[in-house]
Amino acid sequence: MQFASDNSSGAHPAVMDALIRANNGFAPSYGADPAMDEVRQQIRDIFEAPEAAVYLVATGTAANSVALASVCPPWSAVYCHRHSHIMEDECGAPEFYTGGAKLVPVYGESARIDPVCLSETLKAAVHVGVHNVQRGAVSITNVTEMGAVYTPDEVAGLCAIAKEWELPCHMDGARFANALVATGASPAQMTWKAGIDVLSFGGTKNGLIGAEAVVIFDPEKSWEFELRRKRGGHLFSKHRYLSAQMQAYLTDGLWLQLARAANAAGERLAKGIATVNGASLLSPADANMVFAVLPRAAHQRAINAGAVYYPWPAAWNEDGPNDQPLSARLVCSWCTSDEEVDGLLEALRN
Amino acid sequence: MQFASDNSSGAHPAVMDALIRANNGFAPSYGADPAMDEVRQQIRDIFEAPEAAVYLVATGTAANSVALASVCPPWSAVYCHRHSHIMEDECGAPEFYTGGAKLVPVYGESARIDPVCLSETLKAAVHVGVHNVQRGAVSITNVTEMGAVYTPDEVAGLCAIAKEWELPCHMDGARFANALVATGASPAQMTWKAGIDVLSFGGTKNGLIGAEAVVIFDPEKSWEFELRRKRGGHLFSKHRYLSAQMQAYLTDGLWLQLARAANAAGERLAKGIATVNGASLLSPADANMVFAVLPRAAHQRAINAGAVYYPWPAAWNEDGPNDQPLSARLVCSWCTSDEEVDGLLEALRN
Amino acid sequence: MQFASDNSSGAHPAVMDALIRANNGFAPSYGADPAMDEVRQQIRDIFEAPEAAVYLVATGTAANSVALASVCPPWSAVYCHRHSHIMEDECGAPEFYTGGAKLVPVYGESARIDPVCLSETLKAAVHVGVHNVQRGAVSITNVTEMGAVYTPDEVAGLCAIAKEWELPCHMDGARFANALVATGASPAQMTWKAGIDVLSFGGTKNGLIGAEAVVIFDPEKSWEFELRRKRGGHLFSKHRYLSAQMQAYLTDGLWLQLARAANAAGERLAKGIATVNGASLLSPADANMVFAVLPRAAHQRAINAGAVYYPWPAAWNEDGPNDQPLSARLVCSWCTSDEEVDGLLEALRN
Amino acid sequence: MQFASDNSSGAHPAVMDALIRANNGFAPSYGADPAMDEVRQQIRDIFEAPEAAVYLVATGTAANSVALASVCPPWSAVYCHRHSHIMEDECGAPEFYTGGAKLVPVYGESARIDPVCLSETLKAAVHVGVHNVQRGAVSITNVTEMGAVYTPDEVAGLCAIAKEWELPCHMDGARFANALVATGASPAQMTWKAGIDVLSFGGTKNGLIGAEAVVIFDPEKSWEFELRRKRGGHLFSKHRYLSAQMQAYLTDGLWLQLARAANAAGERLAKGIATVNGASLLSPADANMVFAVLPRAAHQRAINAGAVYYPWPAAWNEDGPNDQPLSARLVCSWCTSDEEVDGLLEALRN
Repeated sequence: MQFASDNSSGAHPAVMDALIRANNGFAPSYGADPAMDEVRQQIRDIFEAPEAAVYLVATGTAANSVALASVCPPWSAVYCHRHSHIMEDECGAPEFYTGGAKLVPVYGESARIDPVCLSETLKAAVHVGVHNVQRGAVSITNVTEMGAVYTPDEVAGLCAIAKEWELPCHMDGARFANALVATGASPAQMTWKAGIDVLSFGGTKNGLIGAEAVVIFDPEKSWEFELRRKRGGHLFSKHRYLSAQMQAYLTDGLWLQLARAANAAGERLAKGIATVNGASLLSPADANMVFAVLPRAAHQRAINAGAVYYPWPAAWNEDGPNDQPLSARLVCSWCTSDEEVDGLLEALRN
Repeated sequence: MQFASDNSSGAHPAVMDALIRANNGFAPSYGADPAMDEVRQQIRDIFEAPEAAVYLVATGTAANSVALASVCPPWSAVYCHRHSHIMEDECGAPEFYTGGAKLVPVYGESARIDPVCLSETLKAAVHVGVHNVQRGAVSITNVTEMGAVYTPDEVAGLCAIAKEWELPCHMDGARFANALVATGASPAQMTWKAGIDVLSFGGTKNGLIGAEAVVIFDPEKSWEFELRRKRGGHLFSKHRYLSAQMQAYLTDGLWLQLARAANAAGERLAKGIATVNGASLLSPADANMVFAVLPRAAHQRAINAGAVYYPWPAAWNEDGPNDQPLSARLVCSWCTSDEEVDGLLEALRN
Repeated sequence: MQFASDNSSGAHPAVMDALIRANNGFAPSYGADPAMDEVRQQIRDIFEAPEAAVYLVATGTAANSVALASVCPPWSAVYCHRHSHIMEDECGAPEFYTGGAKLVPVYGESARIDPVCLSETLKAAVHVGVHNVQRGAVSITNVTEMGAVYTPDEVAGLCAIAKEWELPCHMDGARFANALVATGASPAQMTWKAGIDVLSFGGTKNGLIGAEAVVIFDPEKSWEFELRRKRGGHLFSKHRYLSAQMQAYLTDGLWLQLARAANAAGERLAKGIATVNGASLLSPADANMVFAVLPRAAHQRAINAGAVYYPWPAAWNEDGPNDQPLSARLVCSWCTSDEEVDGLLEALRN
Repeated sequence: MQFASDNSSGAHPAVMDALIRANNGFAPSYGADPAMDEVRQQIRDIFEAPEAAVYLVATGTAANSVALASVCPPWSAVYCHRHSHIMEDECGAPEFYTGGAKLVPVYGESARIDPVCLSETLKAAVHVGVHNVQRGAVSITNVTEMGAVYTPDEVAGLCAIAKEWELPCHMDGARFANALVATGASPAQMTWKAGIDVLSFGGTKNGLIGAEAVVIFDPEKSWEFELRRKRGGHLFSKHRYLSAQMQAYLTDGLWLQLARAANAAGERLAKGIATVNGASLLSPADANMVFAVLPRAAHQRAINAGAVYYPWPAAWNEDGPNDQPLSARLVCSWCTSDEEVDGLLEALRN
């Protein structure tokens, strides 16, 4: 009963098959492999963006950081949610890659950026000549770190606020597929049509071994991105193995199919938890992540039954007394079975 | 009627005299001038800190940034007030010098760090392995950016919270002298005895041309500081002119005398504004800065009479309608006369 | 007839099998996978270094840069060969990761650091207080970028020079296995027994998909390495796939077997080229790389026959007239067959 | 008998007078002082460059580093002489400010960049895609660190080579005035007419307390420069004291008058040394610096007579035996008297 993270799951068999096929003979290195040409075309087609620049890296932190550094100068501010991954879970990688840009926290429920808060934060960030950091970019995470999903309209609303200040918009789409299937939006609707300029397009959490695309809708920044990727050590010599993963992911809608499975498990889990005595949801479970408050006894039964998941947030629970409920993050994966979900629910219910 | 900033005032005549005297013949460069030896001894004596390392730079931003970089690794967080100078007015210099450390906002009235907020912020910053930035340092500004002053006990309270996590404590003392005379504390009480490890000891705002000391109470970090100062371009070849300023500043208590004058003017101004019809103070005017809400008409009269000061915060006032009050920052200097203060008050009252 | 690079070859079947096996069920992420425990033990055993810290990343640039940043402060100099990979082929990644350290070129034949040149360069780098960068580290590449190999004694000689100045020594071992089998040295002899403090232990060029180990013999720097790795975006969430590759590589001596095959092909190629009319070797072909001057006609015949390789250096050959010989880099891989080598030689000979 | 450095001399009385005058009342801070408007106009007039952006900082390292960072991205190379100040004497400040650009050494006699060496170095720096750092800028020091002077034609020759690769050209003019009077060139001829894009225009070594201008002939980069200056802590709050120094320096040709005096002393010294038995010049003494080989006994007599100067290079002389000659750098200043020069020569001659 594995609910620790979607990154503790494995890769889909089709991805492994693609790797095996890719391992045939020699291939040009550093992204010049023919499979990358196909991936680029797949992504351009899927996103209805024939001019988009497309690159692969192996980690989400690399995707986010190199992308942000390519659109934000060191003396600028990135507006992002207080609980976004770039703010809380990358050990300052965006600061490192940008050369010291400032990540400014914006607030909102369920790790969603509240439009009013964004608007006021940006308005308050008056440029006092050179004295303060300059407005740099807005970064939106979809699915959010608390499992909520923005609709394309909501994304467009945030981007419109950013565009009032002519700011580029980045989307951290580590769980982009999950957001898409949760909303039914098209990739284009969720991104460039809504105002997104650069996307971290996740694959690792959704059935790959380790591959993320960066999609730059305005390709003017692409050469800088390439240099920053290389300089960060993220240009793979045997790049074909990244290409092969992404190619398999995008073929025949596998990426959406896997996200649908994960989201369905998430929904099943959330609905079940809502019926556990004393339990409640902390956040809308729009996709594959469920944040819940659990009675301490229910939690203990689940752990005893072999369930694996993390308390959330770490600080809140670490020294909680036994008689207090525990809040937890439960993540479903592309391969989470109904049995696993039901097993966990049964343990929670007693 | 100049109330724009204490950095728009000039230098005290004794400082100019010292410069003239320093300009005699040749002197070793890069800090090896004999005057620097005297300055070092003066500061050690004044702070009762015979082991302290003492360095001079020419700007407060340099003092703060090089000091912080010497105690915070790039992957760490500096906890400081939301409205501190390092957060809002240095264009990201601390991020630049530290190599991308994260400045985490802490809240509290009058730009004072609230101890409960600091404590909770630090407690919440649980190190989740390498995933998040590590707790790095606490930076306290005294006088605060809103004119309030911490007592030594209050500083000690904040430092004690920091020390629970073994964090070094920095004080941005751009207006250190004003804080001292406001509280009657000794330099040692306000700093190392309270738990401060490194101090930006301002002079520029209090009658110098451009000279700030950095006082490192634990000299273990001093060699790194020296390298970072040089690498930042802040080691002066003709260093004797920095030394001469600081030497004059510290001789015969000039620094405290000037701060007393500025604080007295601030008090006179604050008391007067409290009696202006429709006006009120936004923050305790503990030292030489007064933050006030002024009726728009009173403001207009003051401007017409030649008063110079800034609205504060910039964002709040830039497009305020004429019928709304304006909030403003009014700063007194070591050379602000009673006549100037009274002239402003008269214009406000009319 | 693929001689472009050992990174255009594929992965060994045993590595693919290990990946497939690793893809079973769930595994803890971010390096907490049990396979990593085994890899750590394997490397400690192989290197006779029971205390060594061991980490995995996916690219050689990441291994080198994060390793160097962990031992060199920003104000230091890294002494390396003028034609080393860190100097010429990483787009400034070491400068990026170290926060701006200076790579100082040292000279020597065949991209080998000449001990006299190293000694004189270090002696000349007198620390003039804070004015110049401080001596930081020595980085040695084995196999060198021109295919030469240092013996353990030669490495020890260079390290001894570095240790006169108490400098840490880094080895870029992107082709470490090839260097070992060329010399018959043990891993310990080639590294810590010779004075190496931190090793980039390559796998990608020798039959893996993308996995390199960093071995830190003095584990004091290991926590800093971990933070820098994360901050650089090089900590893999699905880390088990890196572990699986490295585990397979180190099992039953596969890594040495593959290097032996590559070196044997290199030797066969070098011996053959020596007999081509008008051709000559530019550098001792100690391992799997051959640098040769080829008559332009021979080169043209090879290209026509389908051989793939790069001119070297790029600048020297790009606009050479047709009647001049061409210098080229020819790299053999773990899977280069005798037929391929002989086919190339035949084409060159006509 | 002070020949240690032109930065151990004092400031000219007219500069002190200007400081005193500037210290009158209040002035806008951070470069908005009216005196800065005048300085800007003075420099535009002197350089026949009505569009030039002009900024002041207090140290030469700041001028060079912020200027270079404004024209060179982090992934680029700055081509400069092996013995240039930016390479050897700034503790890596250019690397720090640029975010890790690479300083590539170019060679030539007397710290002059040899045009053939520059041309070949640039030609060899073929961009191999993203793999190596990209050509970034050429930096020329005039007067060189060994006292030689480039004519405008020589500068133009180097810039022409740089322009073949469309590289911006920087001049480190810490001793710009000395170079001008040595050649009789106009400021325009020596800079933008020769191809220089950005100039560090020194004042500190030539009679100021601490003030350097940066002149950006193509003002497109000026906003970025301003942000980088602030972020580096080099924007002075009480900026008027920088303006006052520079204004006095440029008024009535004081800057050229002081340089003429220093150069004349240098010439007198060089001619004299040429007649000392066993002594010889190491480099043409084109301006105010003399590099000489001195018999050890002569050196000892000079030291005994109270002469102050440094051996050069530091490494070469530090442990030389007593019977070997010593090479030394002897620097004349704007205030070096004939008596001092003659006194030194007499001591050397015995």
